[in-house]
Amino acid sequence: MDNRPVENYMPSPLDPADWGDFRKHAHRLLDTCIDHLSEARDHPWCHPVDADCDAVMLGSATEGVGYAEVVDELARNILPFGTGNTHPRFFGWVHGSGLASGILSEIVAATMNSNCGGRDHGAVYVEREVMDWCRRCFGFPEGASGLLVSGTSQATIIAFAVARTKVLGIESRYTGIQEFPKLAAYAASGVHSSTSKALELLGLGAASLRTIPLDSDGGIDIQHLKQVVARDRTVGIQPFCVIGTAGSVESGFFDDLEALADFCAIENIWFHVDGAFGAWARLAESPWKELAKGIERADSLAFDFHKWMYVQYDCGAVLIRDGRVHRETFATRPAYLAGQKQGLGGGDPWYCDYGTDLSRSFRALKVWCALRTYGSIALGKAITRNCELASHMEALVNDSLLLRMEAPVRLNVCCFNAAPFGWDALLQGTLNATIVQQLQLSGDVVFSTTELGGRTVIRAAIVNHRTCNADIEYAISSVLQARNTQMDNHDFIK
Amino acid sequence: MDNRPVENYMPSPLDPADWGDFRKHAHRLLDTCIDHLSEARDHPWCHPVDADCDAVMLGSATEGVGYAEVVDELARNILPFGTGNTHPRFFGWVHGSGLASGILSEIVAATMNSNCGGRDHGAVYVEREVMDWCRRCFGFPEGASGLLVSGTSQATIIAFAVARTKVLGIESRYTGIQEFPKLAAYAASGVHSSTSKALELLGLGAASLRTIPLDSDGGIDIQHLKQVVARDRTVGIQPFCVIGTAGSVESGFFDDLEALADFCAIENIWFHVDGAFGAWARLAESPWKELAKGIERADSLAFDFHKWMYVQYDCGAVLIRDGRVHRETFATRPAYLAGQKQGLGGGDPWYCDYGTDLSRSFRALKVWCALRTYGSIALGKAITRNCELASHMEALVNDSLLLRMEAPVRLNVCCFNAAPFGWDALLQGTLNATIVQQLQLSGDVVFSTTELGGRTVIRAAIVNHRTCNADIEYAISSVLQARNTQMDNHDFIK
Repeated sequence: MDNRPVENYMPSPLDPADWGDFRKHAHRLLDTCIDHLSEARDHPWCHPVDADCDAVMLGSATEGVGYAEVVDELARNILPFGTGNTHPRFFGWVHGSGLASGILSEIVAATMNSNCGGRDHGAVYVEREVMDWCRRCFGFPEGASGLLVSGTSQATIIAFAVARTKVLGIESRYTGIQEFPKLAAYAASGVHSSTSKALELLGLGAASLRTIPLDSDGGIDIQHLKQVVARDRTVGIQPFCVIGTAGSVESGFFDDLEALADFCAIENIWFHVDGAFGAWARLAESPWKELAKGIERADSLAFDFHKWMYVQYDCGAVLIRDGRVHRETFATRPAYLAGQKQGLGGGDPWYCDYGTDLSRSFRALKVWCALRTYGSIALGKAITRNCELASHMEALVNDSLLLRMEAPVRLNVCCFNAAPFGWDALLQGTLNATIVQQLQLSGDVVFSTTELGGRTVIRAAIVNHRTCNADIEYAISSVLQARNTQMDNHDFIK
Repeated sequence: MDNRPVENYMPSPLDPADWGDFRKHAHRLLDTCIDHLSEARDHPWCHPVDADCDAVMLGSATEGVGYAEVVDELARNILPFGTGNTHPRFFGWVHGSGLASGILSEIVAATMNSNCGGRDHGAVYVEREVMDWCRRCFGFPEGASGLLVSGTSQATIIAFAVARTKVLGIESRYTGIQEFPKLAAYAASGVHSSTSKALELLGLGAASLRTIPLDSDGGIDIQHLKQVVARDRTVGIQPFCVIGTAGSVESGFFDDLEALADFCAIENIWFHVDGAFGAWARLAESPWKELAKGIERADSLAFDFHKWMYVQYDCGAVLIRDGRVHRETFATRPAYLAGQKQGLGGGDPWYCDYGTDLSRSFRALKVWCALRTYGSIALGKAITRNCELASHMEALVNDSLLLRMEAPVRLNVCCFNAAPFGWDALLQGTLNATIVQQLQLSGDVVFSTTELGGRTVIRAAIVNHRTCNADIEYAISSVLQARNTQMDNHDFIK
């Protein structure tokens, strides 16, 4: 391959006129960012934005300010105002913490600006490597297909669309679903909201999701599931998907995935697993890794890298056991994208044939970089450590006379209650929510809340490689202090 | 806000043990990347990957290699193997070229690792600024809503879902669409394939899209559209969306958006505009900017930043005139995401209530950075220059006795034919495709192909701020040379 020089070319009006100057400011920004990340533990989890949001106003944005000024503004007006999830005492929702390797990958990805919808170039090979690593990690067979997406929500949409094609046939892509019998999906109560959102998008409606109570082991009650499926079949409703939860977001429960796989095999129903963060229990040590047993029998698996693989936002993935039906569900190639035998238009398969997006960023690089830099053993150890920390938090709660657990810790989620036992549920919830809010505003520690047993409770999801035992101890002591403050608050008691 | 130190903490097992060492390697990588980008013109548009794809193999990836080695591998095995779209003579498909400002934004975004699904933190304010700038740029009213997404494919899905809610009512989220009358969408022949893909995903089926022939001005034939809509209404099919194309991907045509807006107002049908790249004609000078007139009357608009705003992949957006129905279509907040009055759980609106994704990356920063660094005037000038370059290519084709135009250049897409006039269509197409492939493999210039008038023709889409007149002249002379080579090829003539 050769590149003859072009005479008399004009430089780009948008490239730096002085690359040396750009280089200087880029290095300055990189130093500021590395300082910031290396001090993740030393500053409050975030700065409140209220007073500063004016600083990012664009207005008409007609005139540019150039690289030097933009670097100043990024450092001063943007960088300090993070979500807070890089901080070791951020336990809110399920927010991954990011990796230093992600800075490296994003510099390269931004420079290359690859479009990973298809074609024959380096980024596609990297994505294939990443997805093949996932396939082996989760025990899917050769012939399974996979795709990086923005997260589990998208992965779920794609998986359900494939399951729908499997049941209704490929002609349903053309005809739509309106003249087919009604479909139904099944999941444990506590399944993630992205499940019903995906069913809504696909036109099946939230009502097509049957939520099944949990059994005494804390997973889906399979006897109950069996009855609901049988009843649906009786009235002409077609079961099209059973969703197994691998790590629920509220309390961290796991369905018995082996039992669900058996059930789906007998009933001939698509078996999807929502493994957003919990799928990665597979990389942890015993006893946590056993929770994910059976995941390798799923027809489809949705999971995130940006939660418990610590990779930067956004990055999730879907694996589909039957690569053929996956491709049949999404492949369409207009004329201007016709493949070629050789050249850039070559290469096969194209990822645009496996999902909804035609233009696709080089998401694979941050995963590749994480796996290559740290290796799966070290990543698995960090996951194990997070589970141990959740158990440590549970122990501290159990040791305290003023706090009590609201659900057993199964993995990395710890839900507890700081309110006196005798209070009514509403007042208990108000106290817990107020404590969480006070701690967030103090900059000390971020919990979030959830509903369990009809009460708003305090919830920690530990998916942060910077968290250590001392942080857990500090966090629980902060809860106790905040509880005292609030209990002394006469307004509250009234 | 305060942050008391924690005693006896353990460092993260995944953070660099030696930040100074990490810093050194990160700076080294940044230098390599800036070298690479500043030399975008000087090396072939890409390196073939065949011989080198083994170098990115992950294997089991159990052990990490550390930062120094990863930086070496990124520089040696990944960076050179781009899609090619950073090169000034890359005209294939519609691939944006990226901006130097994108390296700055991605360093900061990777450091912050913000999750933009919601809550009250800096990244959300940046996205609001970016979307408000878009709203004003495209003439949408206050009260309109918008969301950054991976690209126009996603934006189209979201827009159609909202249009569906508007027609069927919010209860259709619960019931699904199966018991409703059939819906139909309408677009000009040549509408992008993402349109029918979105209809398939939503369960409406590709058959719900009626493609209407073009009129003599090269846009949708509105009289014909009127007839088809009337016929559908007669048989009980409900028209739910008319799609206007602002810059078709095959040939760059524009529908008469004003006329479509009038039609939709009279017929009370949702008016969606697919403006993937063409919407940005709005920032260009006359006569191109007039092509996008009427876009401000759309009910929804889908467009990309990663094409003609030169921003790094991936980044597109949707604007919805009626923010209320947008929110009604997507809002669901499970208990663990309940809002708070204050603290990180506060802030309103949350972007997760306006789309399918709950976890969302800080895409807004690369757009913010581009607008802030260069300003919309300079970006608009680059867009104008791309249009002028497409016209220059058209002039060169028209000046050549061996090439001929296959469609008039309206914006930035130039389609031409290098085959002798008398040849049959199949042979013409084979010659054009072979020329395109030869030029790609030579490393000199990247065209792609498309189908026009039943023939495979050569196509250039110029969305690259590095392209200049000399590149266009060089590219056409390369086509003529390649044509000679192929015409001399006896195998071909047989």
